[in-house]
Amino acid sequence: MGLFETELKVVNIGLEAFMQGLRDSGVKAVQAKFKPPLVSDASLFAKAAKASARVEKANRKAMERILAAKPALTGMGIALDVIPGMRKDLILHAGPPVSWGRMCGPMRGGIMAALMYEGLAKTPEEAGKLAASGKIKYEPCHEHGAVGPMAGIISASMPVFIVKNEAHGNTAYATQNEGLGKVLRYGAYSPEVIERLKWMEKVLYPALRDAIEFLGRVDLKAMVAQALHMGDEVHNRNRAGTSLFYRAIAPAVIRTCKDPETAAKVLDFVNGNDHFFLNLSMALSKASLDAGRDVKDSSVVVVMARNGTEFGVQLSGTGGKWFTGPAPVPDALYFPGYTKADANPDIGDSAITETNGLGGFAIAAAPAIVQFVGGSASDAVSYTMAMYGITAAESNIYKIPALDFRGTPTGIDVVKVAKTGILPFIDTGVAHKDPGVGQVGAGVLSAPPEPFARAFEHFARTLK
Amino acid sequence: MGLFETELKVVNIGLEAFMQGLRDSGVKAVQAKFKPPLVSDASLFAKAAKASARVEKANRKAMERILAAKPALTGMGIALDVIPGMRKDLILHAGPPVSWGRMCGPMRGGIMAALMYEGLAKTPEEAGKLAASGKIKYEPCHEHGAVGPMAGIISASMPVFIVKNEAHGNTAYATQNEGLGKVLRYGAYSPEVIERLKWMEKVLYPALRDAIEFLGRVDLKAMVAQALHMGDEVHNRNRAGTSLFYRAIAPAVIRTCKDPETAAKVLDFVNGNDHFFLNLSMALSKASLDAGRDVKDSSVVVVMARNGTEFGVQLSGTGGKWFTGPAPVPDALYFPGYTKADANPDIGDSAITETNGLGGFAIAAAPAIVQFVGGSASDAVSYTMAMYGITAAESNIYKIPALDFRGTPTGIDVVKVAKTGILPFIDTGVAHKDPGVGQVGAGVLSAPPEPFARAFEHFARTLK
Repeated sequence: MGLFETELKVVNIGLEAFMQGLRDSGVKAVQAKFKPPLVSDASLFAKAAKASARVEKANRKAMERILAAKPALTGMGIALDVIPGMRKDLILHAGPPVSWGRMCGPMRGGIMAALMYEGLAKTPEEAGKLAASGKIKYEPCHEHGAVGPMAGIISASMPVFIVKNEAHGNTAYATQNEGLGKVLRYGAYSPEVIERLKWMEKVLYPALRDAIEFLGRVDLKAMVAQALHMGDEVHNRNRAGTSLFYRAIAPAVIRTCKDPETAAKVLDFVNGNDHFFLNLSMALSKASLDAGRDVKDSSVVVVMARNGTEFGVQLSGTGGKWFTGPAPVPDALYFPGYTKADANPDIGDSAITETNGLGGFAIAAAPAIVQFVGGSASDAVSYTMAMYGITAAESNIYKIPALDFRGTPTGIDVVKVAKTGILPFIDTGVAHKDPGVGQVGAGVLSAPPEPFARAFEHFARTLK
Repeated sequence: MGLFETELKVVNIGLEAFMQGLRDSGVKAVQAKFKPPLVSDASLFAKAAKASARVEKANRKAMERILAAKPALTGMGIALDVIPGMRKDLILHAGPPVSWGRMCGPMRGGIMAALMYEGLAKTPEEAGKLAASGKIKYEPCHEHGAVGPMAGIISASMPVFIVKNEAHGNTAYATQNEGLGKVLRYGAYSPEVIERLKWMEKVLYPALRDAIEFLGRVDLKAMVAQALHMGDEVHNRNRAGTSLFYRAIAPAVIRTCKDPETAAKVLDFVNGNDHFFLNLSMALSKASLDAGRDVKDSSVVVVMARNGTEFGVQLSGTGGKWFTGPAPVPDALYFPGYTKADANPDIGDSAITETNGLGGFAIAAAPAIVQFVGGSASDAVSYTMAMYGITAAESNIYKIPALDFRGTPTGIDVVKVAKTGILPFIDTGVAHKDPGVGQVGAGVLSAPPEPFARAFEHFARTLK
């Protein structure tokens, strides 16, 4: 009976709701920061523990390759000409594989825009019919060495950046960023969207291509390292990256572009979009992580990607196999007139930046993003600090000023995620759930548990 | 006798050297963070305290004007044509007034460079003779609405930026930044220095002037606000400011420059010098602070400037009167081959940025600078936090991400400096003490006490 007569001081473990009830009744309670493991089968953890020396060795090998990457922008080309396996009837999309029937609204909208852009359909109705007809095939960008933000649509005629990992010899591809507002990658398909894409193909692309050829190469790794010292995490904030890229490219654009007014318009377009660098930071991340693929016994995550329906993960040690689960809806700052009810679940290949130790993993370098969704600079530091708990290494090049230039937490180890229950922290844009609308906000979220639980289970079960 | 038999635990107040002695002998000792007031005459503090309501009201008025400043780059011109009171036989210099006889090496070197640049001397020997002949007059930049980094030399033919405070109507001037290495402002005068200055007059200046005219105005205040979110404090770190200025100006340079190759070279020059923005942030600060001048009874500092011999201060409430003391030698990272023994005492008008709540006052936004001289990100935060103790306001526009976007400490109150003994924290470049050498390092320092003690004494004594 003493329990009911003395003042209670409670330490609560697990569900926070219990603590709130106690607090509401005036009882002092603290929440223990305990998270249960993602996976309940203890035998799998035992198996992983037994093989841990081997797994750690494999992870070191994968991380050495990833950290040694030298991603440089070496050229541009048309998707059909340069992306391996690209075809005229093929559309690449963000995230793990998904059929038209299961695709979310903004991905459908983006595909409709691409079909009109390619001249394969004249109206949204025609495009919708063709898209569903079975004549058009859909495959993940990631399975073609490419990455795309949000819907991540790449069709045959689209110009792409070519980013070469000069240390490992592999190559990654990404389209040119369209800017904000009504754009294909957020599922919009109005005439202005198609017109802009055409201008980007006919004017922007040749100018940037010639400038890059003139320069030979643009060192993207050094640029990202600098951008992290300038308030970017190169996912949701790319103002510094865009500025540095602009400075590098502008004199070359002037020297190679025949018409000064065209050169000025091209530079105005880049200058007008502080996210222009995003697609480059994504291709840099893809080129870096692909070098860490296919290391036997490695539990390092080499892909996190979302198609707006599912969130997918790939590991270094498990080849091209996708581990998926439902994509969550991000916490976000919504544009006026929109709420979370309008938001599509998380979408895009841009989580490749987090996979590479950037984005949400480097958010301590970009506190402005956290403030954007109501947090503080110390929250930003906390998010990055938590990621050190689930990563296999620290970057030797990408460093965070606020942490005395400590390297960013890099290389998610799925064993650590499964053990600690700490989930990767991701910055993201938010698309309207209906096709044709566009962006409705920007925010942050934790990755969903299922893909990591499944990846760990498969990894541990198949460990020899 | 107990004192010599028990273990000592010492709290030391004042000179830290005493504590070091104890520590060296294995005695536990902590240093109390007490600083004695700068001024020992208690009657002056009593006088200031009695008038404090009036002084605070005056300071609010001065700070309202300073914070409301709208400094924009509105044009360029040749010093002789645009700087009030400029003459062919006049050379403007950094800091408080100083005769040729008392000038430090780098300022003499800069003047010799300017005389050769103006065609008034052919060799360094000729220039030195002319400089000392009495035919050339010397006056502070600050007394002509201008500011100059390091030696701060402005001669009649030099092009200058025109920065207009659109809220108050006043104007400030600064030259174009030459870049690093062997440059006039660090006292170098070799042929390459003069050649570069000529190119800056004949090629860079017309291109930038026409581009600014095309744009109408460039909003420098918004640019500095952004740069603080991007790792700059716009004194010793200007990479973001330079990037943002570059982005704003480049398309206009292309549109107004007749020859594309010239446009490319002009942009290459700006791109090649991450300090290009410094002179603009100085002119912005000067244009802002001049609006706060001549408020009766205000103890706000409106100028801190060094001529390499003396450090000078002006207050809002004491008109054009300079309060001076010896300039200290900065703690610095020295370039290979140089030591503190090579360093000239602190020099330049660039402390106008600190006076305006930027530079060392905003160093929490730019931890890279502190790391540069062996400190940590938390040191950077501490330096900025200390400055809140001696300032009259917080900026409404210039904000620091790491402090949850708190406004920078702005408007040094000389009464607070005198009372607390806390001295303004300043970022700076370091020139070789001999003419003709150039930059030997970069570092940080606290302003010397004497100018502030003298300013306070005069201020308090003359309070009616």
